[in-house]
Amino acid sequence: MIGRLNHVAIAVRDIAAASALYRDTLGADVSAAVPQVEHGVTTVFVTLPNTKIEFLEPLGADSPIAKFLERNPDGGIHHLCYEVDDIIVARDQLKAKGARVLGSGEPKIGAHGKPVLFLHPKDFNGTLVELEQA
Amino acid sequence: MIGRLNHVAIAVRDIAAASALYRDTLGADVSAAVPQVEHGVTTVFVTLPNTKIEFLEPLGADSPIAKFLERNPDGGIHHLCYEVDDIIVARDQLKAKGARVLGSGEPKIGAHGKPVLFLHPKDFNGTLVELEQA
Repeated sequence: MIGRLNHVAIAVRDIAAASALYRDTLGADVSAAVPQVEHGVTTVFVTLPNTKIEFLEPLGADSPIAKFLERNPDGGIHHLCYEVDDIIVARDQLKAKGARVLGSGEPKIGAHGKPVLFLHPKDFNGTLVELEQA
Repeated sequence: MIGRLNHVAIAVRDIAAASALYRDTLGADVSAAVPQVEHGVTTVFVTLPNTKIEFLEPLGADSPIAKFLERNPDGGIHHLCYEVDDIIVARDQLKAKGARVLGSGEPKIGAHGKPVLFLHPKDFNGTLVELEQA
């Protein structure tokens, strides 16, 4: 069912510093920062030859990553995103096997303009899993 | 400097359960479990089209992931591994820019038979980074 690893998301306190680190110290290809007001985060993508790293910095008072950064003051890996061909088929197969889908269970349009869902970390080895329709 | 994301490592308490989850629920290609006595872990690789997920289960009394699992009883993402062309050149460039290399600073032969180094999580957004010579 799952296909490519679309990205690894890392929550950071200072997205400019994280961008400079990956660009200047690790020599990677780093995008400009994009505020995503509707998602409560500012994002940057690091493009590697085979996948991407996504930096997430809190944006606004109710950012969904604010609590994560309280627990992880240095930042840390927030989630993995796997691609699926059909997010509704994937969701229904996962639910039938007992996996819990977060929120309403209906896909939302994610930061890349594609339908996404999140799966409960307790069902996936303590790892928050995002599914994105490829 | 950094190239492909070689793998994402996830520490798990029960590698058989994690393997079944990724094989049967997520429909991925999952390897057999391999005890790596010299590294204190048992490993399984999930092969995705573009990269790998590595499961790590503690092996023996002094496993390097035992403390991580005490802090993260459900398991969790343990490290990211980036490929580099020349690990000595990469190490020396990183040290010159102030990044801390863990342990003796000399590469060891990792679970894949290639030279590896680990970088301090506090220097990389709370993320333990492994470098592997490609």
